[in-house]
Amino acid sequence: MAPTVITACSVRDIRFPTSLERDGSDAMNKAPDYSCPYVVLTTDVVGVEGHGITFTVGKGNEIVCHAVRVLSKMVVGQKVNEIYSDFGKFWQTLTSEDQMRWLGPEKGVMHLAVAAVVNALWDLWAKIEGKPLWKLLADMEPEKLVSTIDFRYMHDVLTPEEAIEMLKKSQDGKQEREAEMLAKGYPCYTTSCGWLGYEDEKIERLCREALEEGFTRFKAKVGADIEDDRRRCRLIRKLIGPNNILLVDANQRWEVQQAIDWMKELADSKITWIEEPTSPDDILGHLQIAKALNPLGIGVATGEQCQNRIMFKQFLKSGAMQFCQIDSCRLGGVNENLAVILMAHKFGVPVCPHAGGVGLCELVQHLSIFDYICVSGSLENRMTEYLDHLHQHFKAPCVVREGNYIPPQAAGYSVDMKESSLNDYEWPTGRVWQDLIASGKYTAE
Amino acid sequence: MAPTVITACSVRDIRFPTSLERDGSDAMNKAPDYSCPYVVLTTDVVGVEGHGITFTVGKGNEIVCHAVRVLSKMVVGQKVNEIYSDFGKFWQTLTSEDQMRWLGPEKGVMHLAVAAVVNALWDLWAKIEGKPLWKLLADMEPEKLVSTIDFRYMHDVLTPEEAIEMLKKSQDGKQEREAEMLAKGYPCYTTSCGWLGYEDEKIERLCREALEEGFTRFKAKVGADIEDDRRRCRLIRKLIGPNNILLVDANQRWEVQQAIDWMKELADSKITWIEEPTSPDDILGHLQIAKALNPLGIGVATGEQCQNRIMFKQFLKSGAMQFCQIDSCRLGGVNENLAVILMAHKFGVPVCPHAGGVGLCELVQHLSIFDYICVSGSLENRMTEYLDHLHQHFKAPCVVREGNYIPPQAAGYSVDMKESSLNDYEWPTGRVWQDLIASGKYTAE
Repeated sequence: MAPTVITACSVRDIRFPTSLERDGSDAMNKAPDYSCPYVVLTTDVVGVEGHGITFTVGKGNEIVCHAVRVLSKMVVGQKVNEIYSDFGKFWQTLTSEDQMRWLGPEKGVMHLAVAAVVNALWDLWAKIEGKPLWKLLADMEPEKLVSTIDFRYMHDVLTPEEAIEMLKKSQDGKQEREAEMLAKGYPCYTTSCGWLGYEDEKIERLCREALEEGFTRFKAKVGADIEDDRRRCRLIRKLIGPNNILLVDANQRWEVQQAIDWMKELADSKITWIEEPTSPDDILGHLQIAKALNPLGIGVATGEQCQNRIMFKQFLKSGAMQFCQIDSCRLGGVNENLAVILMAHKFGVPVCPHAGGVGLCELVQHLSIFDYICVSGSLENRMTEYLDHLHQHFKAPCVVREGNYIPPQAAGYSVDMKESSLNDYEWPTGRVWQDLIASGKYTAE
Repeated sequence: MAPTVITACSVRDIRFPTSLERDGSDAMNKAPDYSCPYVVLTTDVVGVEGHGITFTVGKGNEIVCHAVRVLSKMVVGQKVNEIYSDFGKFWQTLTSEDQMRWLGPEKGVMHLAVAAVVNALWDLWAKIEGKPLWKLLADMEPEKLVSTIDFRYMHDVLTPEEAIEMLKKSQDGKQEREAEMLAKGYPCYTTSCGWLGYEDEKIERLCREALEEGFTRFKAKVGADIEDDRRRCRLIRKLIGPNNILLVDANQRWEVQQAIDWMKELADSKITWIEEPTSPDDILGHLQIAKALNPLGIGVATGEQCQNRIMFKQFLKSGAMQFCQIDSCRLGGVNENLAVILMAHKFGVPVCPHAGGVGLCELVQHLSIFDYICVSGSLENRMTEYLDHLHQHFKAPCVVREGNYIPPQAAGYSVDMKESSLNDYEWPTGRVWQDLIASGKYTAE
């Protein structure tokens, strides 16, 4: 039986004490505790639920949870069919409520909260259809898919009609690409080897392990110390050999000119992209960096903190971005990610999603697989981030084989966490947190 | 006795039921309830307090209040001298806390909360010095003033050294300009006549009243209906005569090309600027609009929802903005407004602050007066917004005479609200709200 109405929306504050291990340490995020507001939408059919998350790095996760509670009033009581029959319009309602729009618009805390709620709606839709999200998207008629997108402020680069045309053109070879994905998976790169907080020995060991697992693409964090970076980049390049791919990530550490100067120093390690060289808001700064570094074979990658489709539009059309790093939880859920994937295709910029954190790998693999099957039709210069943290908390964790994401088979958006993990890691009442607080390692505030 | 330490930080959720009168109605904000998180910092000296606000239009005000409470942990216990001796660094601490930065960075709910806290710190500083804020700023040595600014991500257009040079160059004639301000005040324009929800008769009456009060600059809201806009613009132009200034404001209603087409239709009413023609995030879109409309004598104005100095930097350096509309409560308080005022001066773009709402006029007048005395030294093409709403709730409401803001004399940032207003309008427990809820006009959620 299909559900007809959303009956409730709950949210839990889930946090993992990752800062204890310095996992995820970089030039800007010295001690993150990977966290998520965990949203559950229930329906009038018992057991048919949509789960959704957004991602934060610890403190303030409760502010996003609070924002979800405020947004939930616009979702509870809504008819399921009405949402999905004009999802673009419903998305606009959520992001443009008359009074709440002032708090963004479409950025920061409110937009992260929108992502959690919207991701839950897509998870529900895919579960109702009994398909993994990537398959739900891949099977959708172009008109239907485009109807889920809010095109406001995009018309100067992409109209709904043009988007439908693009999708129709990409239908050729769709079935072959789906078969290829199921057989081989979507290429990913690993960030697990090169965190700033790691010693050289640890980097060396992790690189060797990743090579043995079949990875050919590696990312290192840079930006704290130039000598250190030069040594680490050369070390990794030596370990992975001349033909594998090396990416670096400065996590917004630099001024514009500083980024250019710094990267010239690292160019001899053959770097494919410099990620987040400066403020995520600085489109024209990125453009200046791109112009200076492109002759060295280094592209500019950014997007994990790119707030919405309007910013992506400018990065894409100006040439400020050579690799488009959508984020399943920073943008307002699947709908806005589809908008960006389509714009990136129009401008010929490969989409290489951001992942990691908690659950980002589980979610974003669906978008990459859909992108290949239905939009880009290409794997050239394309790779999705992969990190090997926290997957054990998911009911259907992502599967990576030989450096490729294997398409998930379970219905939904792969969000569902184990009930035991939710209970143990709920902040600050969960067992794990109570133990840490009792031992004095954390303070409950 | 001067205080030495911040002892507490409280915040109250204050809202005014302005939507009942349709004051403030425009193409995007159909029924705002002007609201503010009201912050009070107390010190170890009884009675020496800093008050600060940010501004919202109703729903979600409590989310910002919540964010203020989280931020307050970084302020309470801090030594007053240490904050003001390197305010730029303290500002950076507030905006870049390791984990909380993810929630922005420097945008949306978190940045609004930063504004409220930082404005309270400036109010406290001015009160300690016994000066109105504009005078505190005007008397400050260039080096000291520049030390309050966080220059991160600004170095490609302005360095601290260059800023100090600029301020030193503007010292000539400072005393004369201060005397001029005290005698005549800073020019403002009125937005009170042309709200979208008003009938033509009301517009006519309000325009005549404003002319009698000495106003020569008028703003009308546009963007809902082209015929309506054409009629209203011509009506106002006829009422105010050929030489007074007419500005229009679309509150982000349009796509890029739509803005260009629409404004061409209104150009015969001699429009000085089109404000917020499209998304506040669309720098390149604004640039395209500016290029198309500048030949018609129409400039592009924006800024009230421009999230931070990094966005302003791009608007200013690209030529996308001919009028720079800083907002005292959207940017991260006085420090970041100073950064933008200095960048605008460098690029020769007049600063014409956004005001209205609740308290924005009271606050931003200080920044305009400082700008004239110490930075721009010019009144050409400069005017600050004025609206005649809600001033009665302030202990020292702004004073406008003959269309000019008269410099405030009371020590502080003019934030202090009357205790009776705070009590009456606190949401949802205040007397006014309890009455409205009891009468069924509002629902407490």
